[in-house]
Amino acid sequence: MPAAVRIVEVGPRDGLQNEKIDIGTAHKIELINRLSNTGLRSIEAAAFVSPKWVPQMADASDVMAGITRAPGIRYPVLVPNEAGYARALAAGATEVAVFTAASETFNLKNTNAGIDESLARFAPILERAKQDGIQVRGYVSTVLGCPYQGDVPLRDVVRVATALHAMGCYEISLGDTIGIGTPAKARAMLSAVASEVPMAALAIHFHDTWGQALANVLACLEEGVTVVDAAVSGAGGCPYAKGASGNVASEDVVYMLHGLGIHTGIDLPKLADTGRWLARLLGRETGSKAGKAMAA
Amino acid sequence: MPAAVRIVEVGPRDGLQNEKIDIGTAHKIELINRLSNTGLRSIEAAAFVSPKWVPQMADASDVMAGITRAPGIRYPVLVPNEAGYARALAAGATEVAVFTAASETFNLKNTNAGIDESLARFAPILERAKQDGIQVRGYVSTVLGCPYQGDVPLRDVVRVATALHAMGCYEISLGDTIGIGTPAKARAMLSAVASEVPMAALAIHFHDTWGQALANVLACLEEGVTVVDAAVSGAGGCPYAKGASGNVASEDVVYMLHGLGIHTGIDLPKLADTGRWLARLLGRETGSKAGKAMAA
Repeated sequence: MPAAVRIVEVGPRDGLQNEKIDIGTAHKIELINRLSNTGLRSIEAAAFVSPKWVPQMADASDVMAGITRAPGIRYPVLVPNEAGYARALAAGATEVAVFTAASETFNLKNTNAGIDESLARFAPILERAKQDGIQVRGYVSTVLGCPYQGDVPLRDVVRVATALHAMGCYEISLGDTIGIGTPAKARAMLSAVASEVPMAALAIHFHDTWGQALANVLACLEEGVTVVDAAVSGAGGCPYAKGASGNVASEDVVYMLHGLGIHTGIDLPKLADTGRWLARLLGRETGSKAGKAMAA
Repeated sequence: MPAAVRIVEVGPRDGLQNEKIDIGTAHKIELINRLSNTGLRSIEAAAFVSPKWVPQMADASDVMAGITRAPGIRYPVLVPNEAGYARALAAGATEVAVFTAASETFNLKNTNAGIDESLARFAPILERAKQDGIQVRGYVSTVLGCPYQGDVPLRDVVRVATALHAMGCYEISLGDTIGIGTPAKARAMLSAVASEVPMAALAIHFHDTWGQALANVLACLEEGVTVVDAAVSGAGGCPYAKGASGNVASEDVVYMLHGLGIHTGIDLPKLADTGRWLARLLGRETGSKAGKAMAA
């Protein structure tokens, strides 16, 4: 087990992008500012994607302009292409994230491009980012299964993760997009990728659609991972399973990590307060069981 | 990891006992009959406790009279004392369960008796059960924490579990009553008890109040446990944390076990159907994320 873990808080982007209710620009800014005050060191702030496809992220530039950036905190933003990268840069982003799937079918349906085409699209972004002094995070989705093709061969996950790392991504986040994996599979996937990419450059990104996320995180901690993506209040949903839950809740992950004696630097009561505040804005109960228990 | 795990389905008793809505005798009987048809081998059917304190279980005799008992399935019922034991026997029970806490404070508040007094109360039940050919299961609650005294020393858990085993309980179920434990603590607790009681005679019984149950189950599987208590649809609640969730959902446990290649003999789609049917009766969504994902 690692001595310390860095949580990458993805609620303001991956979470809100998949929520039906748009909490509005002012509340997005307040959310990020509140999160900046909990001890988190990475907060994914927005996505510079087409507002036609993702209306929830149309105000990305305003969000970036409005937040108070605390020293020592990363605020990555998602960019799908060079146009998105240019907008992100203009909005003052100092870190961006690119994304592709490990499943060819998923990537085609989701981005209208094959995996190799996606990777080729990222090459100039990585080149420019290097010149601009911008750090780049890489996402690989569908690493434990695909809603269209079912199983995703491990070699495809390894190939895509290795390619992103070789192109210059400082960290590769391995995503179980449909939350279908179980602990031994999650661990085997991480181990396979870690044979090609240093473990220190890997993150796990698990959704809780089948209720397995925290068990999968535990298995990957035992394998040595030190970076975990999570969303406060379990924000988000699963476009491939109506009514299902989204990202693993940051509060539940942090509660487990602290119970395991793993340092996060995070003030859990503050984080849980923010999660319940966000849930009220979203018109529902918090998706974090630890958050609910702390309120009781 | 074990090759096979037996699930002890506690929904009809521990689950329903802690739900606000009483689904009625006919539905309780239908629930148990449906569960008998899923491949489960242990189904906790009722509690012969005071109807004054637990009105949800007042119809225990009618439930036992109404169910169709399938060969090879255990139907334990909870008994708090000799009077309860006599009622259970009259209702045709062939297996009973006794319970005490590892926390002295909890036991006093919950049963108005100290732990030693509870154990002394069980001695004649175990004696009679031996003569009557009735198998007895023992529950130890608050094994990972107490809502009143906080930490519960490991030695107290070991002492109570060992005493129940020595008195003749064939299986000891170790309960995290308030769902507060995390994986390393769960594993250390199990390991400590297993140093005095054979692992084959131990079960784990985790509530999901803090969202940790499945991760804790995983840790205990790695330690070698082969019996896991769970409740279909995550039925139940936590009297010590209003609005919090209850037992770990059987469907989520079974989904993880099958993903780990561990045999359960359970038909997961059938179990999940039953969970969603029960949730409708309880007027809410299923508490099983796997159950929700399977419906989507």
